[in-house]
Amino acid sequence: MANKKELRIGLIGCGFMGRTHSNGYNRVSNFFPDLEYRPVLKAACSRTENKVKAFATQWGYESWETDWKALIARDDIDAVDICTPNDMHAEIAIAAAEAGKMILCEKPLSRTLEEGEKMVEAVAKAGIKNTVWYNYRRIPAVTLAKQLIDSGKLGRIFHYRANFLQDWTISPELPQGGEGLWRLDADAAGSGVTGDLLAHCIDTAIWLNGTIKDVSAMTETFIKERVHQATGKVQKVDIDDACIFHCHFENGSLGLFESTRYARGHKALYTFEINGEHASIRWDLHDLNRLEYFDHRDESIVRGWRSIHVTDGDQPFMDKWWVPGLSIGYEHSFVHQVADFLKSLESEAPCAPTFEDAYETQKVCEAVIASANSRSWKNVD
Amino acid sequence: MANKKELRIGLIGCGFMGRTHSNGYNRVSNFFPDLEYRPVLKAACSRTENKVKAFATQWGYESWETDWKALIARDDIDAVDICTPNDMHAEIAIAAAEAGKMILCEKPLSRTLEEGEKMVEAVAKAGIKNTVWYNYRRIPAVTLAKQLIDSGKLGRIFHYRANFLQDWTISPELPQGGEGLWRLDADAAGSGVTGDLLAHCIDTAIWLNGTIKDVSAMTETFIKERVHQATGKVQKVDIDDACIFHCHFENGSLGLFESTRYARGHKALYTFEINGEHASIRWDLHDLNRLEYFDHRDESIVRGWRSIHVTDGDQPFMDKWWVPGLSIGYEHSFVHQVADFLKSLESEAPCAPTFEDAYETQKVCEAVIASANSRSWKNVD
Amino acid sequence: MANKKELRIGLIGCGFMGRTHSNGYNRVSNFFPDLEYRPVLKAACSRTENKVKAFATQWGYESWETDWKALIARDDIDAVDICTPNDMHAEIAIAAAEAGKMILCEKPLSRTLEEGEKMVEAVAKAGIKNTVWYNYRRIPAVTLAKQLIDSGKLGRIFHYRANFLQDWTISPELPQGGEGLWRLDADAAGSGVTGDLLAHCIDTAIWLNGTIKDVSAMTETFIKERVHQATGKVQKVDIDDACIFHCHFENGSLGLFESTRYARGHKALYTFEINGEHASIRWDLHDLNRLEYFDHRDESIVRGWRSIHVTDGDQPFMDKWWVPGLSIGYEHSFVHQVADFLKSLESEAPCAPTFEDAYETQKVCEAVIASANSRSWKNVD
Amino acid sequence: MANKKELRIGLIGCGFMGRTHSNGYNRVSNFFPDLEYRPVLKAACSRTENKVKAFATQWGYESWETDWKALIARDDIDAVDICTPNDMHAEIAIAAAEAGKMILCEKPLSRTLEEGEKMVEAVAKAGIKNTVWYNYRRIPAVTLAKQLIDSGKLGRIFHYRANFLQDWTISPELPQGGEGLWRLDADAAGSGVTGDLLAHCIDTAIWLNGTIKDVSAMTETFIKERVHQATGKVQKVDIDDACIFHCHFENGSLGLFESTRYARGHKALYTFEINGEHASIRWDLHDLNRLEYFDHRDESIVRGWRSIHVTDGDQPFMDKWWVPGLSIGYEHSFVHQVADFLKSLESEAPCAPTFEDAYETQKVCEAVIASANSRSWKNVD
Repeated sequence: MANKKELRIGLIGCGFMGRTHSNGYNRVSNFFPDLEYRPVLKAACSRTENKVKAFATQWGYESWETDWKALIARDDIDAVDICTPNDMHAEIAIAAAEAGKMILCEKPLSRTLEEGEKMVEAVAKAGIKNTVWYNYRRIPAVTLAKQLIDSGKLGRIFHYRANFLQDWTISPELPQGGEGLWRLDADAAGSGVTGDLLAHCIDTAIWLNGTIKDVSAMTETFIKERVHQATGKVQKVDIDDACIFHCHFENGSLGLFESTRYARGHKALYTFEINGEHASIRWDLHDLNRLEYFDHRDESIVRGWRSIHVTDGDQPFMDKWWVPGLSIGYEHSFVHQVADFLKSLESEAPCAPTFEDAYETQKVCEAVIASANSRSWKNVD
Repeated sequence: MANKKELRIGLIGCGFMGRTHSNGYNRVSNFFPDLEYRPVLKAACSRTENKVKAFATQWGYESWETDWKALIARDDIDAVDICTPNDMHAEIAIAAAEAGKMILCEKPLSRTLEEGEKMVEAVAKAGIKNTVWYNYRRIPAVTLAKQLIDSGKLGRIFHYRANFLQDWTISPELPQGGEGLWRLDADAAGSGVTGDLLAHCIDTAIWLNGTIKDVSAMTETFIKERVHQATGKVQKVDIDDACIFHCHFENGSLGLFESTRYARGHKALYTFEINGEHASIRWDLHDLNRLEYFDHRDESIVRGWRSIHVTDGDQPFMDKWWVPGLSIGYEHSFVHQVADFLKSLESEAPCAPTFEDAYETQKVCEAVIASANSRSWKNVD
Repeated sequence: MANKKELRIGLIGCGFMGRTHSNGYNRVSNFFPDLEYRPVLKAACSRTENKVKAFATQWGYESWETDWKALIARDDIDAVDICTPNDMHAEIAIAAAEAGKMILCEKPLSRTLEEGEKMVEAVAKAGIKNTVWYNYRRIPAVTLAKQLIDSGKLGRIFHYRANFLQDWTISPELPQGGEGLWRLDADAAGSGVTGDLLAHCIDTAIWLNGTIKDVSAMTETFIKERVHQATGKVQKVDIDDACIFHCHFENGSLGLFESTRYARGHKALYTFEINGEHASIRWDLHDLNRLEYFDHRDESIVRGWRSIHVTDGDQPFMDKWWVPGLSIGYEHSFVHQVADFLKSLESEAPCAPTFEDAYETQKVCEAVIASANSRSWKNVD
Repeated sequence: MANKKELRIGLIGCGFMGRTHSNGYNRVSNFFPDLEYRPVLKAACSRTENKVKAFATQWGYESWETDWKALIARDDIDAVDICTPNDMHAEIAIAAAEAGKMILCEKPLSRTLEEGEKMVEAVAKAGIKNTVWYNYRRIPAVTLAKQLIDSGKLGRIFHYRANFLQDWTISPELPQGGEGLWRLDADAAGSGVTGDLLAHCIDTAIWLNGTIKDVSAMTETFIKERVHQATGKVQKVDIDDACIFHCHFENGSLGLFESTRYARGHKALYTFEINGEHASIRWDLHDLNRLEYFDHRDESIVRGWRSIHVTDGDQPFMDKWWVPGLSIGYEHSFVHQVADFLKSLESEAPCAPTFEDAYETQKVCEAVIASANSRSWKNVD
């Protein structure tokens, strides 16, 4: 490792995503020994000193900051990783770009399209490497789906459907806002399940099936009021608890998307299915090592959905891990994204999804919310 | 059997549904020995003499007719079973009602709401027993779902989703119209997947989850032209190949429905799932003996979706068949509907779904088509 | 139907198997219209008059008997169907053969090898058609498995494993013996799970994978004493509650078999799996329409177990039933066996499994029990 | 981390297991921050300098050795981790014990019972901490199974069955012996699937269900000769390609075990199932986050196998990782074992399975091989 070039990371935000990213940095060199670069955990940043100190110690950061501007100002930082609540993404990213730092930003890109546009402009102007952590693209089974689609195995696509179902906010006793629950506070999150969950589904969908043209959506807030942790008072809930939309893709296929935090029995059920003329594919985050595949060209009497355990060395990323049959997990998608980001430093190539890619997802999210609010179809443009 | 009262059946239409219903009549007395009535297969009717004769011989009908009006005119017929293409439902049903015959009508009730309204009026005026063959209600696992919901086990309902996916019309070589393929001809069928497949989903949904208030839909015809079997010419396809809609139920829950004949890999994938505050249920026609059930009140460390093999004597209808673990199939749903129709003759009770019930489904179908055509939300009323 | 030749059936034993067979006779002509023969339910026989009368009425038998010898003596009976407890199989079958009747005998063939040998001799001497109701061969998915193996798709076979797991005798309160529970009484049944359940597994195994050479077995009786229904007294239980054995097949593959009535959670879990050089197959009675198939010759990145929903017209027996995706059930295996028996009347061909075939299964059962009792390997010969 | 006490590791053997263990050491402090100890990767050892150098660099070892005796002799090593082929376990372990080093030894403990006995004596005499890497105990779903059994939820146990099926040695072209394939060489491995795969099943079984009393086994070598990589010559294959045995447990339950490398379609299918009076449990390594659980005490109409996604904070180890619904993988079991070993340093408690525990597994393996060779039952003692 001594001979590798360093990518010095400054990470802002020490919550759940701070952990997943830090783990990605810590593991990548063990499993991707051929990369020219290696990440160095230079500094972690969070407002609360005790918290950031403990986090930095646990994850092996060399130092810590409590002011993100101080972190950005440091000369020994090459790349800024933004893991804050969504309401800080734009400000930090723009400042980091202006400071010439590379940026790895947690999804969704921004709360609003307007914020997102400024962020895209900022990184373009600065000419810096950038990526957004839509990590599910790099689950091996999902990457394999992309390969199969790109190979033409599916033929003309008719249908794309995806959902992201959870059940953790059903209790009316659950408060909103504050640390740990900022995703339930519209000011911090921008939206509810649309930005938090559907954004993942949309990113994958655009990647696998191309541009979305127009959408017709509905949203719902089942629990209308919750105690806000910041104020201690019962306040109106402004996020969407559930969001459903159908749409047309540019390629003529129909899309169907649903997300909710009120689907009892589903912890994190992100599934997608794509139906083509010749073949179909489906995937489920709960059993993320498996890809299901149906090929109509199989001999008719033995035709059926195949359950592919994506753990072989000739399947995406799996030459880096163990042996056939041995599973990897959720966190590996982040290791893969770190690996691909480091790889992108070796050339001019971007590390998708970039801010620009993520902005496309943001446009769909914005159209979805607008459609739901106006009870009408909205074009994505 | 000698002591049972007779219900003398005249069946019109000797296609696929003629077979499923005839099997229902033939088997019911073997498995429901306690019924006061038994069906007697008095006459089958179809336009082609050779065909109806062979059908009557195969299924044990005592006689046959080639003119449905002649069948209705016969004194030795108590009940008319309508298995024709959809475009004949209204005319036959109204004539049968006027002749004082009971009616068992294949679904969907009618091609249009207007036709349906007249049919409802006709049976009401005649005061006759009537039912529509939405057979899936009487799959034991589906009936069990109804019992669980009615028992309150699910609590407040948040989500209902259903789909009916097939893949048999993907080839552009497939013609439309004529015998066997009238479902692809809008004149004969009224609509495409909406009336053929979604109508099943809607019937079950209303039964399990109550009234649908409003809908937002889209439809698509993927193959725009096909040879018509009647004319031998390439003609515009007027049916919907796919239909997707979301909706609000009266009880505040959100609905999501999809149907298509272009979902490669799915032969007849009718699934539904309902998410309640405390528990959730899902079902899949491909594995129809199983009901999946999740109960949040289970002890947390051993909480999971239960795969219930609905074959025990204390589960709906299963005391009539074999022993625990031994499956029944699709056709049994028709036997159950015959049994329940016969049972209804012992009292004043209707045999749901009646024409009136099926008319509710028709209203939703009509609103769905109207919504898709106008690209706007439509109320169901 | 009027033109068909008659096969006049006399059925002895009106319990569970009496029902499955009667249903087979009643349905076959509706679904197999091309057969030259049709079964006619001439007489049912059981010792208790009330019972046999009700049974005959329910199932449509023209008459009834309370003495099986009287039934065999009747001129208007062509074939005797034996559905009694196992202890009556030999006596009835031998008498029926001597009377020149065809015989359809419920499995297992006999309680002992000695009885079985006499039965085989009797039918051979009489030169009559005979079959044993190992019905699972004619589940379409199982028949498809046979076709795939015979086609050579699997290549050299390495492993065969099967089990039949139930859980209905776990309660010590359950009595043994008498009507309904004679399977728990060694005198009536011959053995416990070996003859009742493993015999099915062995029959399928020999059919699919050839002769079994030698076995090493163990058996267990978990509940040592139960009230006997005949005496009202607590008596020693002599049947095997569980039986496990491994074996060598003639073709060099290894076999592994297990059966029990103490596997909590399994109602009737009959599964088998066969692993070949190129491909593997597995099946589960609980989901009997599905066959799972793995083919190593598939392209490596999309290789996986296929879940084949065996409901298409080009799969065994399925052209007779509904349309793709629509399930059939347990009882259909008996309809298929009736159809094949009737078909066999059109030529010299036997209807497998014959008494002779079933005797092979009996030999394995006997070796299994002997091996368990002696704690040593036993050859099957 | 600075304040933690160090456990200085010297790892011998840089193959597949060297990687899994090294990863365990590297990750444990990130996820188990409360431990008093942290591992320090002091030295890696392998005979080939290039190889060990690259390994040490990749995994972050401070130094390397090419002679294991030199490694053991170093003062700056607290614990020796043995990841060599099985034929070196005993010699290294005994030397390490004599040098007063703690030992973490890869499974199986030894090639023979004789070797194992000496190893147990050596660590006992030295009074050092020791553990054997039967890692599957610490898959969260497996640990949960242990908790459920210990809680009494299953009641009296009737059946335990397990198998470990692979398919990677079916090709006759595959050579035996040498690096990467020493598991196919009886001299290096001791046995074939018995020590490599069944040993895992036996370790779990004893842990979950107690002592095994006696066994009846068979083994098979399907491919009799293979090229040996060391000699380049076709040589007799001495390992067992497949091994099947049944057994009695001390608690009166019956056991059934099977392992093979010739089960086409199974990459690493380790499954076990345990059937108790009240409840049953099953698990499958291919979907390692799931535990299936059936509880007969559930209300009868909604009774079914539960598929528990073991990813919640109140399930074993899962408070250390992500959020409900997000999977972990194979490698985490090693992290957990490292954590538990470090924890054991804080007290007098051993870290199971110890050499003594693993010796019990070895005794069963030896009895299994002896039984297969003699075609007779063997007691385990």
